[in-house]
Amino acid sequence: MVFTLEPGSEVPLYLQIRDGLRVQIEAGALPAGQRLPSSRQLARDLGVSRVTAASAYAELEAEGLVEPRLGSGTYVAAPWASSGPRASRLAGARLPRWQAAIGPAGSATRSRMMRESARSDAGVVTFAWARGDVTLFPTVELRRAIADAIENDAPPSLQYEQSEGYRPLRSWIAAHLRLAGVELDDDDVIVTAGAQQAIDLLARVFVRPGDRVVVEAPTYPGALEAFESARAELVEVPLDGEGMRADALADALERERPRLVYTIPTFHNPTGAVMGAARRREVVALAERHGVPLVEDDYLREVRFGSPIPPPLAAFDAAGNVILIGSFSKSLLPSLRLGYVVARGPLRERLIALKRVADVGSSALLQRALHRCLESGAMHAYWKRASRLYRRRQQVMVQALRRHFPAGTRWSAAQGGLVLWVRVPAGASVDALLDEALAAGVSFAAGSAFFARPADQPFMRLSFAAQPEAEIERGLAILGRLLRAQLARPTARSA
Amino acid sequence: MVFTLEPGSEVPLYLQIRDGLRVQIEAGALPAGQRLPSSRQLARDLGVSRVTAASAYAELEAEGLVEPRLGSGTYVAAPWASSGPRASRLAGARLPRWQAAIGPAGSATRSRMMRESARSDAGVVTFAWARGDVTLFPTVELRRAIADAIENDAPPSLQYEQSEGYRPLRSWIAAHLRLAGVELDDDDVIVTAGAQQAIDLLARVFVRPGDRVVVEAPTYPGALEAFESARAELVEVPLDGEGMRADALADALERERPRLVYTIPTFHNPTGAVMGAARRREVVALAERHGVPLVEDDYLREVRFGSPIPPPLAAFDAAGNVILIGSFSKSLLPSLRLGYVVARGPLRERLIALKRVADVGSSALLQRALHRCLESGAMHAYWKRASRLYRRRQQVMVQALRRHFPAGTRWSAAQGGLVLWVRVPAGASVDALLDEALAAGVSFAAGSAFFARPADQPFMRLSFAAQPEAEIERGLAILGRLLRAQLARPTARSA
Repeated sequence: MVFTLEPGSEVPLYLQIRDGLRVQIEAGALPAGQRLPSSRQLARDLGVSRVTAASAYAELEAEGLVEPRLGSGTYVAAPWASSGPRASRLAGARLPRWQAAIGPAGSATRSRMMRESARSDAGVVTFAWARGDVTLFPTVELRRAIADAIENDAPPSLQYEQSEGYRPLRSWIAAHLRLAGVELDDDDVIVTAGAQQAIDLLARVFVRPGDRVVVEAPTYPGALEAFESARAELVEVPLDGEGMRADALADALERERPRLVYTIPTFHNPTGAVMGAARRREVVALAERHGVPLVEDDYLREVRFGSPIPPPLAAFDAAGNVILIGSFSKSLLPSLRLGYVVARGPLRERLIALKRVADVGSSALLQRALHRCLESGAMHAYWKRASRLYRRRQQVMVQALRRHFPAGTRWSAAQGGLVLWVRVPAGASVDALLDEALAAGVSFAAGSAFFARPADQPFMRLSFAAQPEAEIERGLAILGRLLRAQLARPTARSA
Repeated sequence: MVFTLEPGSEVPLYLQIRDGLRVQIEAGALPAGQRLPSSRQLARDLGVSRVTAASAYAELEAEGLVEPRLGSGTYVAAPWASSGPRASRLAGARLPRWQAAIGPAGSATRSRMMRESARSDAGVVTFAWARGDVTLFPTVELRRAIADAIENDAPPSLQYEQSEGYRPLRSWIAAHLRLAGVELDDDDVIVTAGAQQAIDLLARVFVRPGDRVVVEAPTYPGALEAFESARAELVEVPLDGEGMRADALADALERERPRLVYTIPTFHNPTGAVMGAARRREVVALAERHGVPLVEDDYLREVRFGSPIPPPLAAFDAAGNVILIGSFSKSLLPSLRLGYVVARGPLRERLIALKRVADVGSSALLQRALHRCLESGAMHAYWKRASRLYRRRQQVMVQALRRHFPAGTRWSAAQGGLVLWVRVPAGASVDALLDEALAAGVSFAAGSAFFARPADQPFMRLSFAAQPEAEIERGLAILGRLLRAQLARPTARSA
């Protein structure tokens, strides 16, 4: 294979490789059925990271040009219209033509990075997921709550629930938000399958193909995927220590006339930034002045390290312009699959109708169980305990960063949340580091997944919340060693 | 208010009323803030059913032209651009302008009919939902399975699950389908939040605005809503005793070049029809010949009344053209929110990516609990018991129909499933009957919800599975009495 890669080009390396391979496949230089080199081999041949090579294959696979065969490698796919034998896991079966029209939903590379980061092979110390330590959770409360809902609240607990959610849970959420300063009716709360579903429903209601959506750079990859899936054009706004910059937001609102603004003002994912009250007021006013709905992802507010947190953006909003999203995945348990969105008027009606279309309604049983847990008061004790423990783990991680990572490494230090955002020194490749780290039994989230254009970025997100202190120390020692070694290699530095 | 209603027109009455009111509101004859007559009063004034009047209001509300105020009635809404005080449940809050651009997702009337039918006020005997009798379910198995998953399979049971689903559950489903004659790999199974989410994900992948989708008339309203939400044009194909007619399908494929065909070949919802093996082969071949993917909603196969059921359409499909959907909501418990879709190739990858966008993944805990229940063997005993009991209830309902309903009433008699589809004699209005039935403490699903164009239809769907025999007898006596009374009134007959 002949390649001319331009390392300094605007076009990321994995796309250059994809394009080079595509030309050769389409020209017949690489005929159908030909076995391609492994991503490891290709990476070695081209002097790129294995993630870069594998990302190129992922893009080609999504286009139907190559296909992996289990345990055997990657092959050039037969053309769809061909009458030749198309490889398939089903003996003798071919894929119908319409399969060829199904492309990837968004970035195949982001998708791959997220899966790769999240690999949970036995023995891997994972810093990849922004999640709490569920081993701290008082599971006896959960078991009791579920048993009680089954025994004492059947048949409703076993049946379909109203699409908008279990009424007592919605009332609890409304009361919880009122305590945080948000003015709302119980009816304004719609229960969703986590914050992710709330974002997806909003993307489906608001975004038409080509509409612009303002997001922070970096931001939560699940939101990027939802907006990409609605075929939005993403407009990135940079952050400072307080999160989304108001001047840049003003520019974007002026210049891009977006359909929606999406922001994470509290314990920003991935940077951990907390927006101050003045900035909150400014951002809310800007969006209102431009008549653009402002989606506030308030995914976690209960786990914090002492400093007081300003009220949600929704509390600064007198115009009904802020759409508040919340979640119980990070503060309690991901496997509840419960979150919410607060909306009024036609938007509320449309979201409820769309929730019914999406999945009828969330589990009547889990909603009742969650409500019982929340009412018991045990969750407040849990939040206190988790906050103390996560704070300690954050400190341990910061100490480990200081001790093990090379000079020039920078990181955020949030007042809460679950993750640190780490900038590696110039010359290091985080995508390459992820390859090496996985081989050494450590995983983390590569920075590239958090940007609209998932090129190799000098950032990594490290979750401190879910690992015991000794594992944090051990994992960061490994990462630091690999990073130093990478920086010491002349090839890496020049790339 | 002055109205000229044309009862014999192509345009349904509720749309005529909507249009009449809209003209008066837009002309200023009905000024902002004016209180409108109650739907009961409007129905009386115009000589239409209350459901018809309320449907007209629902359409206007969805357009933002009128607004209900809790406990006070329906009012003409202030124009969005107006600076006047817009009524809202939040004191002093106005709705921002972008709210005006949010219309209904599909038919506001279908949406309303579904909610109305499903009213579960205390004391209402409901025949409205196609659901099993969850009081028969061995809840001790469920409790044990959940407790075991929490105690012996944490942390994974408390965490996020892979988007494609819990591997052992997918393997169980694949084995279950192999027994039914379907050839597939374990990896082809993707776990979804019930059949509804599977349909919605498929609509999102396949349907672009204006694309045609072939559905049966009547069919499952949740599928109609999903396709409408993707802005499909629905093409209805009529049924006979074996479900979707092959000749009509052939015509539709030829004439309309649809993007997708959606069918329910087993215990068709709402008619209960079961497609024979020859028809299955024919339908599969037709779709394949036209290169149109065939979505098979196999929502319930385990509850049957003795006669053998042919294998799923997917078992007749050698071309990979059938996309099989299944569910545990009807066969086990709705509150599990678990179902599945079987897909290969690029479609499989796209569906997994879209499932991640939609809700990350279904509950790790409920997937593990369901898998434990299925493995225990207790579910097979439950299916046997439920089948026996539902069969008996179906017989009781048929006897009650014979005894209480007027001559000229017709109904299906399915070999399984949960519902009967009843055709009322000419001259009766089912929408009006629903009003009266609700007032008398009985609910059912009005036929209009099951058609692409939800006009008053002479059909009602009665669920026999979830009510004890005495309630079936009592409820049908009331329905029969109301129907006879309606037919005896000269006004009703002439409408």
